[in-house]
Amino acid sequence: MRLSECYVPTMKDVSSDVVVASHKYSLRAGLVRQNASGLYTWLPLGLKVLRTIERIVREEMDSSGFLEILMPSVQPADLWRESLRYDSYGPEMLRMQDRSGREMVFGPTHEEAISDVVRSSLKSYRDLPINLYQIQWKFRDELRPRHGIMRGREFLMKDAYSFDVDFEGVMRSYENVFSAYFRIFRRLGLVPIAAKADSGAIGGSISHEFHVLVPTGESTVYHDKRALDLSKNDYCTTEEIASVYAATEDAHDPQNCGVDPNDLQVSKGIEVAHVFYLGDRYSAPMNVKFHDKNGNSAHALMGCYGIGISRLVAAIIEVFHDDVGIRWPESIAPFKVGIVNLLTTNEDCKTTAETIYAALADSSLYDDSTDSPGVKLARMDLLGMPWQVIIGNSFVKDKVVELKNRANGTTEKCAVDALIARMQA
Amino acid sequence: MRLSECYVPTMKDVSSDVVVASHKYSLRAGLVRQNASGLYTWLPLGLKVLRTIERIVREEMDSSGFLEILMPSVQPADLWRESLRYDSYGPEMLRMQDRSGREMVFGPTHEEAISDVVRSSLKSYRDLPINLYQIQWKFRDELRPRHGIMRGREFLMKDAYSFDVDFEGVMRSYENVFSAYFRIFRRLGLVPIAAKADSGAIGGSISHEFHVLVPTGESTVYHDKRALDLSKNDYCTTEEIASVYAATEDAHDPQNCGVDPNDLQVSKGIEVAHVFYLGDRYSAPMNVKFHDKNGNSAHALMGCYGIGISRLVAAIIEVFHDDVGIRWPESIAPFKVGIVNLLTTNEDCKTTAETIYAALADSSLYDDSTDSPGVKLARMDLLGMPWQVIIGNSFVKDKVVELKNRANGTTEKCAVDALIARMQA
Repeated sequence: MRLSECYVPTMKDVSSDVVVASHKYSLRAGLVRQNASGLYTWLPLGLKVLRTIERIVREEMDSSGFLEILMPSVQPADLWRESLRYDSYGPEMLRMQDRSGREMVFGPTHEEAISDVVRSSLKSYRDLPINLYQIQWKFRDELRPRHGIMRGREFLMKDAYSFDVDFEGVMRSYENVFSAYFRIFRRLGLVPIAAKADSGAIGGSISHEFHVLVPTGESTVYHDKRALDLSKNDYCTTEEIASVYAATEDAHDPQNCGVDPNDLQVSKGIEVAHVFYLGDRYSAPMNVKFHDKNGNSAHALMGCYGIGISRLVAAIIEVFHDDVGIRWPESIAPFKVGIVNLLTTNEDCKTTAETIYAALADSSLYDDSTDSPGVKLARMDLLGMPWQVIIGNSFVKDKVVELKNRANGTTEKCAVDALIARMQA
Repeated sequence: MRLSECYVPTMKDVSSDVVVASHKYSLRAGLVRQNASGLYTWLPLGLKVLRTIERIVREEMDSSGFLEILMPSVQPADLWRESLRYDSYGPEMLRMQDRSGREMVFGPTHEEAISDVVRSSLKSYRDLPINLYQIQWKFRDELRPRHGIMRGREFLMKDAYSFDVDFEGVMRSYENVFSAYFRIFRRLGLVPIAAKADSGAIGGSISHEFHVLVPTGESTVYHDKRALDLSKNDYCTTEEIASVYAATEDAHDPQNCGVDPNDLQVSKGIEVAHVFYLGDRYSAPMNVKFHDKNGNSAHALMGCYGIGISRLVAAIIEVFHDDVGIRWPESIAPFKVGIVNLLTTNEDCKTTAETIYAALADSSLYDDSTDSPGVKLARMDLLGMPWQVIIGNSFVKDKVVELKNRANGTTEKCAVDALIARMQA
């Protein structure tokens, strides 16, 4: 895409209360704009990244046997009364009345809504398991929304729910999702730690949080120093990963963790996913029942599994950036290639830039502006496409273009044909 | 997909207040489930159709030079005060207070939000035109939500906004979208009428509504009897279409319509899209300004363009159904083919069903249940896939399967190989 035909309102400066890199660069690179505290508009480049993460999550959930559905954002308060959470949920839940005076909420999560759907059709143990997920915007009225899309009030989540006949069934679903999450994070270029966690407001008894470790993370994770190596290993099984100690601050038990103090690390992390065994926490009060093999009525047992899709955009920028901008991993970059022509008045350079752009069109962002070389190079570094093709003096002199790897900063000179072939690969 | 691995909770009966076909079949075929008045969960088959419509809309908007963004659902009331709509909008707007007591709304439309985004970056006439769209859930608190997803409270809309230097610029954007809409509706198998309309609560002065004509439609359209033929003609230009009289009830002027009374038809229609010339209705009060060629400050002129994506699912069912179920057009069917094996205890039939399913997997729904032939055939008619492959006595006798065209009910006998080749084409 030509920069002149895209809408990329970059910014030079951001306000002084912007402290983390992902907040700064998501604004400066024109990925998002703030409409109000904790409320953001996703602009073309940001939305492209968000959609790519969605697609990866969707592919892995689909291949794990989960079916996509979509529940409404606005839910009747009565459902939350049935589950006994309406009064306990607290001020993070955005509450309202519709024009008939009925109390409604903007769903901060969907255990009640999914239970309401499934109970309306569930009859027999033969209908189970039921594995459903959605990718839906949620609202949590944070007391202090901060760090931009890292902790916004309206945020995009993939939330999945499993319904099973018995505990073993839920554990199969749980492990299934656990493995899918590692595949997802690896495809995104991330190395998460799966930490035993408290289940908090969601309820239930078994729970893991997935954390991406970065110094700016707001969570604290206690883990065996081997945990990160295991997560990095593509061939490591879920069992191997789960066998190594890792726990969130709330769940960490220094006395009984079984880790030699010399092997215990304390890391800062960003929580990007959370999985829960719910048991009958919702199915009992909400009457999600089926007839078992013996004809007896039983409550379905549930698990729920969330990934913070919009937060992942922030987490990825926290991991992949430097002092001048974003360094997108190729798997989720808005464009694979950025094309910069430094000599806009040179006809040869212009023709070459257009030739390269024509060959790479969909996978490239071509800065076709007449801005100065310094402005263009700085902007392309800020935007962070994995590869930069720079057309300038080397082309005039030697008919070669420069290919810059944004991740490590190395550049090499390439003939145009070879460059196109390589970038198309 | 195997029916046993999909979540398709079909229903035999619906409540007696369900009167239109799309409401009945969207519930009976397991496309959606109601969570509360006007609030629906989209189940796997329904969501597939919704996503396909989204994709078609997206492709045509992208190819028209519009860029996709995504604005938040929840908006600060202050933006609506700036545009002078907060007090006038009425009880259809869902209003709420956040935990700090700030007034917020669940966006019924996004003219304010987009103006807020664009004014933050717009500087020069060189930045224009700016053409943006989103596909986003909206909430309108209908007094009487009815006819299921036809008039739900939470509904999916594609809303596009154009910002231009002058009137001619907006008209180019307007005609651009007008043409894109005809392409979209034709790809969906629909023949809409573009009727001159009042612009109502949105404001502005030039406006067209797009109506799909069906007897159950809630709107009335007055039109030259040639209008429908022109809309059906793929080669007809926007100018030709716009030159033939069509107007909504509010905009119809019997004295000055210029149509011979013998040529004037009155039809019932479903409003599926609406386009508006807004001028400076929002850009003036909200200060969306740029410097023109002479360095003077001017307000950008706007257009806005909506398509009711979730309502289109209902409109398509209203057009494509019969007494026993849905008849999906191939372009948006959840699956192209439904596979039914009537003789589940016959090993040959079973093997053949599995062979056909293996060849067509992603494009077919295979009823692998052991239900009776009558139940299976009725269910497949209800679900409405364009082609049905029926394996039964003809296969036992002559090694052929039946291929049924759901749209016209014709059946023919096919050898398995020929059938697979044809359905894969």
